[in-house]
Amino acid sequence: MEKIKLTFLGTGNAIPTKKRNHTAMLLTYKDENILIDCGEGTQRQFRIAELSPAKITRILITHWHGDHVLGLPGLFQTIAMTEYQKTLKIYGPVGTKRFIEELDKMNKIEIPLEVHEVQGKFAENSEFYLESIPMTHNCPTLAYSFVIKEKLRLEKSKIKKFKLPNSPLLKDLAQGKDIKLNGKTIKASQVTYKEPARKITFILDTRLNDNAIKIAANSNLLVCESSFSKKEESQAREYMHLTAEQAAQIAKHSKSKKLILTHISQRYEHIPKIILNEAKKVFKNSQIVNDFDIIEI
Amino acid sequence: MEKIKLTFLGTGNAIPTKKRNHTAMLLTYKDENILIDCGEGTQRQFRIAELSPAKITRILITHWHGDHVLGLPGLFQTIAMTEYQKTLKIYGPVGTKRFIEELDKMNKIEIPLEVHEVQGKFAENSEFYLESIPMTHNCPTLAYSFVIKEKLRLEKSKIKKFKLPNSPLLKDLAQGKDIKLNGKTIKASQVTYKEPARKITFILDTRLNDNAIKIAANSNLLVCESSFSKKEESQAREYMHLTAEQAAQIAKHSKSKKLILTHISQRYEHIPKIILNEAKKVFKNSQIVNDFDIIEI
Repeated sequence: MEKIKLTFLGTGNAIPTKKRNHTAMLLTYKDENILIDCGEGTQRQFRIAELSPAKITRILITHWHGDHVLGLPGLFQTIAMTEYQKTLKIYGPVGTKRFIEELDKMNKIEIPLEVHEVQGKFAENSEFYLESIPMTHNCPTLAYSFVIKEKLRLEKSKIKKFKLPNSPLLKDLAQGKDIKLNGKTIKASQVTYKEPARKITFILDTRLNDNAIKIAANSNLLVCESSFSKKEESQAREYMHLTAEQAAQIAKHSKSKKLILTHISQRYEHIPKIILNEAKKVFKNSQIVNDFDIIEI
Repeated sequence: MEKIKLTFLGTGNAIPTKKRNHTAMLLTYKDENILIDCGEGTQRQFRIAELSPAKITRILITHWHGDHVLGLPGLFQTIAMTEYQKTLKIYGPVGTKRFIEELDKMNKIEIPLEVHEVQGKFAENSEFYLESIPMTHNCPTLAYSFVIKEKLRLEKSKIKKFKLPNSPLLKDLAQGKDIKLNGKTIKASQVTYKEPARKITFILDTRLNDNAIKIAANSNLLVCESSFSKKEESQAREYMHLTAEQAAQIAKHSKSKKLILTHISQRYEHIPKIILNEAKKVFKNSQIVNDFDIIEI
């Protein structure tokens, strides 16, 4: 099973610290390299992580606040210095097209872009799709899921057992079609197994809301902002952010398997365990990430 | 004598590396904190250096290429989160007002700004002045000098010798006026000495040109870009940059006292001595700086 690799390039929030840069994550799956948000300094984080920005295929923007997007112009410039042959696909909430136009006016964008303001399912192919849903923040904001679809796979031992030759019939079986071989019917279900779907959800800046639970439903990995601790719950409400406990509630109610806490405020630079412990009380399988952490599923 | 402190916040060029961020320098003298250029990620460099962006009084922009200015929006945002009571003064070449307007459209600037497109001497007061001169790059570009004026100082031992009382007469002497005390003339020159002028010049992106030598004349410190080595001289000419040797020629012909090499390309990440040695052959008192180096004069 091909792994999905998630590299955390920035796990801080509005003000960067020595340890945490602004938000950015890179999801790698086969040829896809999907960047989720791009705070100031992201291109340097790529460099430090020894990753190539020229491999990026898509960028998902949760919202157009500075700490999530100010790395875009520099990233575009650096990609333009490579021999980038692709069309970079940018997805974001309403307003994204206008923002990209403004960026282009400031600093001419020298790579081919395709800009989409999205809602619901998008970028679907036979293997995966992306999905977005509106969040509750003080500007248009989206949460995203990356979903690899359930897939039928041929079971090698069974192929041997039934002495199936390497022929187009195998393809039929892999597509769930029963076949006839030497007058005998072989059911697809006899020689295949289902590789389960996998889902990663990204919930960045938002106040607690039902859509968050909806999009996160049954995620293998829920990456969620966790800007405040329980003590600052009123501030979280005022600034439209989540506490660690609320992030854990989303994980719990959405029946997610694992919760990843990010977007950590500078006030917890030396005491991130406060955040982690509050989440763990509600949802045991919680983890707080640092810049350059890698998680694979 | 109050020192001028220069903190190098970014010493790389177009593409940041693990060791070097894009260009930014902070000049501190008494209450003045003057930032020269502000590449992407500069606010985080402030944070790592444990310096406060809220103390910045002026920003000098050499030119509006991304690697010299993309840190501005984030820096403005972070300053706006402090209780910034000053009016931030921005100086730059022709086009600076338009660029600031564009930035403001993208990301509302929430601090009071005063924007000046400068030429020649500016921001002069009794203690210091700033000066700019056009360079030769592929967009409007300026080099800058910060000059502390020569100043008359009272010599304590002489004040004692002449038994001068603590009276307004001392102020007259300090201003170069001769005085009469008990019917006797005391010349200012008898009790004062001249604290010499000090000058720091900043030459960033440019091709070799006469204005560079002109503005650098008699600098105590010449901070100069040095993007290429002699081997890449044709590239330096094509991209309108300086080689280390050319930077040293400017230092030599301008009769500068010390040359500081910065804006070092990623290709010299592990071999900066190539750059330094080429400069030293022409101008012995040369030094290459790294991020977070501090130089005081």
